[in-house]
Amino acid sequence: MIPAHFETDLRRIVGDEYVRVGEHDVEPYAADALGIGHLPDLVVIPANTSEVAAIARLCHAHTVPLVVRGAGTGYTGGAVPTQGGVVLSMERFTRILEIDETNLLVVLEPNVITGQLQRAVEAVGLFYPPDPASLERSSIGGNVAECAGGPRAFKYGTTKRYVLALEAVLPTGEVIHTGSKAVKNVVGYDLTQLLVGSEGTLAIITKITLRLIPKPPAQATLSASFADVRAASDAVSELIRRRVVPAAIELIDADSLQAVAAHVGPMTAPGTGALVIVECDGTPAAVDEEAVRVHDACTAAGALSVSRATSEAEREALWAARRELSLALRATGLLKINHDVVVPRGRIPELFDVVAALKAEYRLRIASFGHAGDGNIHVNLMVDRGNDEERERARRAERVLFERVVALGGSITGEHGIGFAKRPYLDLELTPETIALMRRVKAAFDPAGILNPGKIFP
Amino acid sequence: MIPAHFETDLRRIVGDEYVRVGEHDVEPYAADALGIGHLPDLVVIPANTSEVAAIARLCHAHTVPLVVRGAGTGYTGGAVPTQGGVVLSMERFTRILEIDETNLLVVLEPNVITGQLQRAVEAVGLFYPPDPASLERSSIGGNVAECAGGPRAFKYGTTKRYVLALEAVLPTGEVIHTGSKAVKNVVGYDLTQLLVGSEGTLAIITKITLRLIPKPPAQATLSASFADVRAASDAVSELIRRRVVPAAIELIDADSLQAVAAHVGPMTAPGTGALVIVECDGTPAAVDEEAVRVHDACTAAGALSVSRATSEAEREALWAARRELSLALRATGLLKINHDVVVPRGRIPELFDVVAALKAEYRLRIASFGHAGDGNIHVNLMVDRGNDEERERARRAERVLFERVVALGGSITGEHGIGFAKRPYLDLELTPETIALMRRVKAAFDPAGILNPGKIFP
Repeated sequence: MIPAHFETDLRRIVGDEYVRVGEHDVEPYAADALGIGHLPDLVVIPANTSEVAAIARLCHAHTVPLVVRGAGTGYTGGAVPTQGGVVLSMERFTRILEIDETNLLVVLEPNVITGQLQRAVEAVGLFYPPDPASLERSSIGGNVAECAGGPRAFKYGTTKRYVLALEAVLPTGEVIHTGSKAVKNVVGYDLTQLLVGSEGTLAIITKITLRLIPKPPAQATLSASFADVRAASDAVSELIRRRVVPAAIELIDADSLQAVAAHVGPMTAPGTGALVIVECDGTPAAVDEEAVRVHDACTAAGALSVSRATSEAEREALWAARRELSLALRATGLLKINHDVVVPRGRIPELFDVVAALKAEYRLRIASFGHAGDGNIHVNLMVDRGNDEERERARRAERVLFERVVALGGSITGEHGIGFAKRPYLDLELTPETIALMRRVKAAFDPAGILNPGKIFP
Repeated sequence: MIPAHFETDLRRIVGDEYVRVGEHDVEPYAADALGIGHLPDLVVIPANTSEVAAIARLCHAHTVPLVVRGAGTGYTGGAVPTQGGVVLSMERFTRILEIDETNLLVVLEPNVITGQLQRAVEAVGLFYPPDPASLERSSIGGNVAECAGGPRAFKYGTTKRYVLALEAVLPTGEVIHTGSKAVKNVVGYDLTQLLVGSEGTLAIITKITLRLIPKPPAQATLSASFADVRAASDAVSELIRRRVVPAAIELIDADSLQAVAAHVGPMTAPGTGALVIVECDGTPAAVDEEAVRVHDACTAAGALSVSRATSEAEREALWAARRELSLALRATGLLKINHDVVVPRGRIPELFDVVAALKAEYRLRIASFGHAGDGNIHVNLMVDRGNDEERERARRAERVLFERVVALGGSITGEHGIGFAKRPYLDLELTPETIALMRRVKAAFDPAGILNPGKIFP
């Protein structure tokens, strides 16, 4: 598949030092948080946009598959090859180019780690809200490619709300610039938003301009314990019914609490059936006012206890434990099949009913937690690695989960994308007409179909 | 161009009553706020999505131009034919189908007037923030097609931030559904955001699902007078420097103040050089706190006076006057050539320098006002209708304005779109590669190029 001289041509573009061949050297580039994909034939590590463009032109000329990789923390195989070809690693694109305090924006290269970006802008009183749990490991380029969310999306929206402009290389080698540094721009089609969440299938993002907001001066974190997940999800609905809009409303079920207790220590009193964590932010007065409303709503919904973190250290410990949930579930040794389904926000109680039914019908351990305020829950099917029969039950349960979520007016993925993992389920949610249209859009960017083949489409 | 039997076929789809022919009957469908375009051969007024699909199939089969029209209030000719063909008027799509208080969303047909939508959701404590000045005349479908903004976009973003899902008919006749009722959705490409702002060139929107937020319980409106527009724009920068984020920061220059004084009565003391209007919203405590910060920032920037509206009636009067600005400028009898340029928000003082320079260089009357907090200013070249030489100067100034805005890192349109009016300037902002890509995206939706031909592209 890889023509003769291709490797030589690649070496000419980036230098010998930045081409990897051989199983040992390319294997680290074949996996993400989902697992191992196909090994690439070659890994190339360009230094700048013009090298990226030259690589794209070369791959296009020879119809060689080209998969772009950031930090490799995705959950659906978006950065992992499904066949041979080239992995283009963005690992040298690590600079924050400009923090513009007057225009409230930041310009940066895609492989800046999201947490690093946040600290850099917070140092000057600005704020980049999206906060995926992986923020200390995932890159902003990956966040843009997948449209990452996180707890604060409840108030602040996901990554897409902050992307103002992109520099990107088309799979045919042209460099395009979308959007501008202005916060409003309706010139032609919104290619910026089309690229956000396109999972590395339309173009190679080489520079990102993000809108920032002023950092909220005060925060409060409350946690409320409930007897069971149904009571906790009723509390989430009660908050929404009362028109309370905190920064984040998270829910953690008993199975997840148990895993985190074993991994980093207990978050709750023993026997708690579910935990709701609420983050308030804003001016000190507004935060205090909102914290009281949150307290009242949780109490009215039957919370066993509600408490507000009394120090910054206590706040941070709570959120750190929340961010460790995925790792804690992995630490159980079980295979964690992670789905990030989403329903209209008021239907969270019904979603938990679906999960309870699946547990019973398919005799599965399922640990659920996530962004309840957005209706977006990480439903983790926990399976014995050696138990093929259980795995098969999980596979059947997975499809039923997706069917029921779509029937609730929801979506099969709210954050992680389709990638390789959810391809078989795309047509549960999209009609053939819509899928055909998306394929034509893909062809408008990538006529030869070389960029990230085997993703999204069934 | 229109084949025989075409009219009969149209009549068969919608009934005789809903087809208009003849100059007198089609002429009302040939104009928008920009002016009169080409007369259509036929106007068709479908009742539902399947009639829209049948009309699209018919036009596609015969390669007849098809222009979709909402309330016809656009500023760039987006709803106006540039050649003959069919105008499809959405005037019968006027129902609010569902206000969902549990899931915080509304489902509606495109020709609901935006102000009517706002009142309907505010009656149950919810809030649809986008507030174009035309909100009592423009339709939500037009707002979505153009991605309308308005003063509150400063805090709340433009129309695109609220569109969750669309039903739309492709120019080839297929009905597609994009997005879902869930607030997060990363399934495939974001066709929803691609359709928002696509100016009726990609698909015919037939149903809209909008995200709502709780209505802020309190508001305050402040107005600050300045000696000149430079001082006023410095105050806007000072607000941003102090990280104050009110709901809206509007700026009105002396020429605009004069026009509104003649039209609806004075907004300011005589001799005021520029007015800044700031809207704060949120909880009562947060509003009071923010109003003090706004007052301090305006005073520090040299305001002649700062006052807070003391009653709801006074607040509403101020905003009503603001919304009348466009009509007031028209009432001067001069031709108003309206441009909605946008620059990175901190560069507002430089934008007003550009306007001042154009006034001097081209000896033009220019009235400017708008969404200063977003860097988005309506720059109105005011020209004697009978004076061709002045009109020619205005035409030359227009190009220079756009060039300088792009040089400031801005965009030639922040709200109104390209339509017919700004086509000649598209390549000032976009490269040939980007324009070519947009044309391929257009072809992915509309292979025969029948939908709204003559728009956006040069």
